[in-house]
Amino acid sequence: MKTVVKADGRVEPFDRGKLVRSLVRAGASRSLAESVAARVEAEVPDGASTEEILSAALRILERVDPALAALYDLKRAIMRLGPTGFPFERYFAKILEAVGYRTRLNLVVRGRCVDQEVDVTAERRGVRFMVECKHHDERGARTDLKVAMYTYARFLDVRGEYDRPWLATNTALTPAALRYSRCVGMRVTSWLYPPGRWSLASLIERTGLLPVTTLRSLRDPSPLVREGLVTLLDLVEQGGRLADLLGERDSEVVVGEARSVLARLRRSRRRA
Amino acid sequence: MKTVVKADGRVEPFDRGKLVRSLVRAGASRSLAESVAARVEAEVPDGASTEEILSAALRILERVDPALAALYDLKRAIMRLGPTGFPFERYFAKILEAVGYRTRLNLVVRGRCVDQEVDVTAERRGVRFMVECKHHDERGARTDLKVAMYTYARFLDVRGEYDRPWLATNTALTPAALRYSRCVGMRVTSWLYPPGRWSLASLIERTGLLPVTTLRSLRDPSPLVREGLVTLLDLVEQGGRLADLLGERDSEVVVGEARSVLARLRRSRRRA
Repeated sequence: MKTVVKADGRVEPFDRGKLVRSLVRAGASRSLAESVAARVEAEVPDGASTEEILSAALRILERVDPALAALYDLKRAIMRLGPTGFPFERYFAKILEAVGYRTRLNLVVRGRCVDQEVDVTAERRGVRFMVECKHHDERGARTDLKVAMYTYARFLDVRGEYDRPWLATNTALTPAALRYSRCVGMRVTSWLYPPGRWSLASLIERTGLLPVTTLRSLRDPSPLVREGLVTLLDLVEQGGRLADLLGERDSEVVVGEARSVLARLRRSRRRA
Repeated sequence: MKTVVKADGRVEPFDRGKLVRSLVRAGASRSLAESVAARVEAEVPDGASTEEILSAALRILERVDPALAALYDLKRAIMRLGPTGFPFERYFAKILEAVGYRTRLNLVVRGRCVDQEVDVTAERRGVRFMVECKHHDERGARTDLKVAMYTYARFLDVRGEYDRPWLATNTALTPAALRYSRCVGMRVTSWLYPPGRWSLASLIERTGLLPVTTLRSLRDPSPLVREGLVTLLDLVEQGGRLADLLGERDSEVVVGEARSVLARLRRSRRRA
């Protein structure tokens, strides 16, 4: 049986079922997922990295169903929102808006001790959250205890203005960071936590707010991101501005791909 | 008049008096300091960096008084205790011992929420400090608000075990980090803070505990540091172990230089 080398160096047996499940989660039919996974297992060398396996699956998917390939690559698309943290803050705020929060970005809030920069202010049903966004653009990076601790300390400093702290990240938390956050009553959103409807992955699936970095036709997302265009919906809704930013021709290609990915997402949701 | 470019990019006029004062502080006589500073001002190009000025002064000093040169280069010597943080923790604990604290290194302390790694535990007159050491090995680096905040949050978590938090660093704190630390009642030791007898620079001068990285004859301090030999006094007192670590010949040279620098330090103190 083939083995896989994980991002943290651990070696595990190749798990075809896991690959199938991840493809189905992205919207593939069972039979397509099975056939892609079988081809990947046959193609990749023994001891391949999870990254290589993902890339092999993507190469195959792209020929069969390019829009599905975009959906499948979601985790890396979020990483490509870097290198600065701001696009992720903006993106996460849009997701919060879509699920009913009122948000404000990048406030400087006078704390008891010092002025604090608050990434996102989110309010729902009278509860005010101070949201700290931690974006990582490397595989294997995790949000650690120090981040959880300074976020909580910042909350303590601005306590008069907020009711609860909230740490949002596109990767995982270390076990200590997660334990600490829960212990001090800090809400956490990470890629797969909390399990169920409120993880980042689930929020994206539910809201359909895919990041612009999902698109394969978009080489450099930074001019769009600078203008606040961070989701595919933004691109479809603001096609006119896009032409100014990317040129007539590129913007047509990009909007075309955005429509096609969104249509693919709707199809796979109807089926689910 | 010549200008100087600071580590943070600011341009200032060349200040000969400042250079003289820094040389006197390291133990130079007034007249030696004046003559070195005048030569430096003549030699360096307009727009030189503070680093270049320091290097020029050192080159001149080394010919006249090598042991004094070692003392003058103290700040960079502390930086060379890197790249990991551990040597600085060990070094700072030795300094605390010398001024009357009982210390313990690298404890894992059960906090209210998680196990916390405490760099140094320091106790004096019944007051127990949780000391977080932050070592930087690059010029211009400063200890920032996030570090101050996670240190305070760690203290809150282990509050049952300690009475006060203490942040110690070999560089400066940012203004926000300093304001925050004072506001939450956290003791701070940085290179020049607090002004007076308790800054790191003053503590080193008072205790005479120079780091092994002060020595020009020591190419690689890491084997010594690993063995807990972090000050010149350790080298002089434990010459035997040194021969095992560096070889007979190198260890003699190193101990010789250590004795000579320590003698120079005593001379300049008597004069002060």
